Amino acid sequence: MKKPIRVAVTGAAGQIGYSLIFPIAAGDMLGKDQPVILQLVELPVATQALGGVAMELEDCAYPLLHGIELADNPRDGFRNADVVMLVGAKPRGPGMTRADLIRDNGPIFTGQGEAIDQCAAEDCKVIVVGNPCNTNSLIAASRAARVPRANFTAMTRLDQNRAVGQIARKAGVAPADVKDVFIWGNHSDTMVPDVSLATIAGKSVREVVSADWLATDFDKTVRTRGKAIIDARGKSSAASAASSAIDHIHDWYLGTGDHKVVSMAVPSDGSYGIPAGLIYSFPCRITAPWKYEIVQGLTVDAATQTRMDASTKELLSEREAVKDLLA
Amino acid sequence: MKKPIRVAVTGAAGQIGYSLIFPIAAGDMLGKDQPVILQLVELPVATQALGGVAMELEDCAYPLLHGIELADNPRDGFRNADVVMLVGAKPRGPGMTRADLIRDNGPIFTGQGEAIDQCAAEDCKVIVVGNPCNTNSLIAASRAARVPRANFTAMTRLDQNRAVGQIARKAGVAPADVKDVFIWGNHSDTMVPDVSLATIAGKSVREVVSADWLATDFDKTVRTRGKAIIDARGKSSAASAASSAIDHIHDWYLGTGDHKVVSMAVPSDGSYGIPAGLIYSFPCRITAPWKYEIVQGLTVDAATQTRMDASTKELLSEREAVKDLLA
Repeated sequence: MKKPIRVAVTGAAGQIGYSLIFPIAAGDMLGKDQPVILQLVELPVATQALGGVAMELEDCAYPLLHGIELADNPRDGFRNADVVMLVGAKPRGPGMTRADLIRDNGPIFTGQGEAIDQCAAEDCKVIVVGNPCNTNSLIAASRAARVPRANFTAMTRLDQNRAVGQIARKAGVAPADVKDVFIWGNHSDTMVPDVSLATIAGKSVREVVSADWLATDFDKTVRTRGKAIIDARGKSSAASAASSAIDHIHDWYLGTGDHKVVSMAVPSDGSYGIPAGLIYSFPCRITAPWKYEIVQGLTVDAATQTRMDASTKELLSEREAVKDLLA
Repeated sequence: MKKPIRVAVTGAAGQIGYSLIFPIAAGDMLGKDQPVILQLVELPVATQALGGVAMELEDCAYPLLHGIELADNPRDGFRNADVVMLVGAKPRGPGMTRADLIRDNGPIFTGQGEAIDQCAAEDCKVIVVGNPCNTNSLIAASRAARVPRANFTAMTRLDQNRAVGQIARKAGVAPADVKDVFIWGNHSDTMVPDVSLATIAGKSVREVVSADWLATDFDKTVRTRGKAIIDARGKSSAASAASSAIDHIHDWYLGTGDHKVVSMAVPSDGSYGIPAGLIYSFPCRITAPWKYEIVQGLTVDAATQTRMDASTKELLSEREAVKDLLA
């Protein structure tokens, strides 16, 4: 029997959290032979609801679920955690700008970064889902000097999955036939979907679907999908965000199978001219459990470069907006 | 590549539905090598929300999801379905008796039974989750003479899973160590949890936990768990109900692994003196994909027999209340 992996989740009783923690307990994220202990964190006001969620987890009798621990603060919740999933964040309300959102959420992530620094396993792996996730991850990382900087990531896998879904539908194939689509940049509408490596049933994407569609409907649909979901459901994406967070951690730990690359927002090492330290989505390759490297040597065309630069500029302005929060 | 299995789900945009369909698409129910086509059914009033759910499914890029079809009526929704999961039902409102609930929900299940008869695959497998699930399954089965009666089931796996969860917690073991707990009777508070075959890490349950606890706290907690979840969450069980429905179909198709028995409410063949035809939860053994048999020859003690009889009586009165709906 493998040693259980401790997985901490914030916002665990929220909508994404409720869609996330059951599949983790079922073994979808870390493998069907890997025991897990869930460390669920919520705001004190949600303690009762979190208790109900824990009862439902118990009621599933998941064979791999070796423990459920509840906390109303990150210090207790992150203790010895091997994986920390920062899902909870203040949502964007009516009339709020992105800058307002960044200022409101920043302090949550300073506290969580400090709790990771003080309490989590020293090689813990972190994914930030709560938006603006790239900059929130930057803030948390800056407060957790004990943990390797490269372990702090943010989620652009939902954007990648959305792109794959759109291409599969357009080409009339199953999503499994679409490989190696990836995302550059910020998880915002400046993101850059890239199909230069992508294939459909082994053929280049550009041989199967039109350049015009890729440049127009495809690009716009992927970048504005979040709002379209809200318009249809009356609620923001929950199950698809949770599924993508599971994919992110799954692939980071267990590899990408027959896919060569996967999108992860990770600290830039200066690759492709992205300023070092920014949490930027790159095409990554998983080289061993919990090890990724940024894929090197890709040719970036001029149009893509221009858009990547715009996403860089946005991330620099976000960093500037929270500079007082960075340690 | 295996041929896709068509899975129809009613109430697909509801709370249980939203927790159910993503894991089905991920391969948790029918296997990680089994493509699926989801046929999602909702009331016309929920068409827009269902569209949003379908967008999220597409956004997950599930490799095994070969199609998503949406319908606002069961005839369209059940066409050629191999598995039909009847989840949608009118919930019990304030002041409603169980008899009121039965009368309100009955007509939904006559229509769905007729749609199964006319449109689904002729060997389709049916699970009813919407309550009162045993009697709803009886109604649907009576209207679908073309489909083998034994293919109509109702869900008591949630009750079994709750019982396993309670025993695991009490014994301080992982749920995987608790085997062969099962449920007799109706999915209502007359259900009878039975630990006579059950083991904890290979020992009889009765050697590990006290008879007094089994007869009091354990029994009451399992039978009243639904209400306790509502009290804590402010909403009824969703993720745990969905997980149990997945377990029910998974085990029916893929077997129970190292568990000898599993609880399924199935048409009685007269076993244990239960009137033939009632949909009653028995300990079942899976003998081949989509084949179960009621475990025979168990010794039933007097106290259990009395409670089984009470559950039978309740199911007979439910049948009497809907006799005009039975074909």
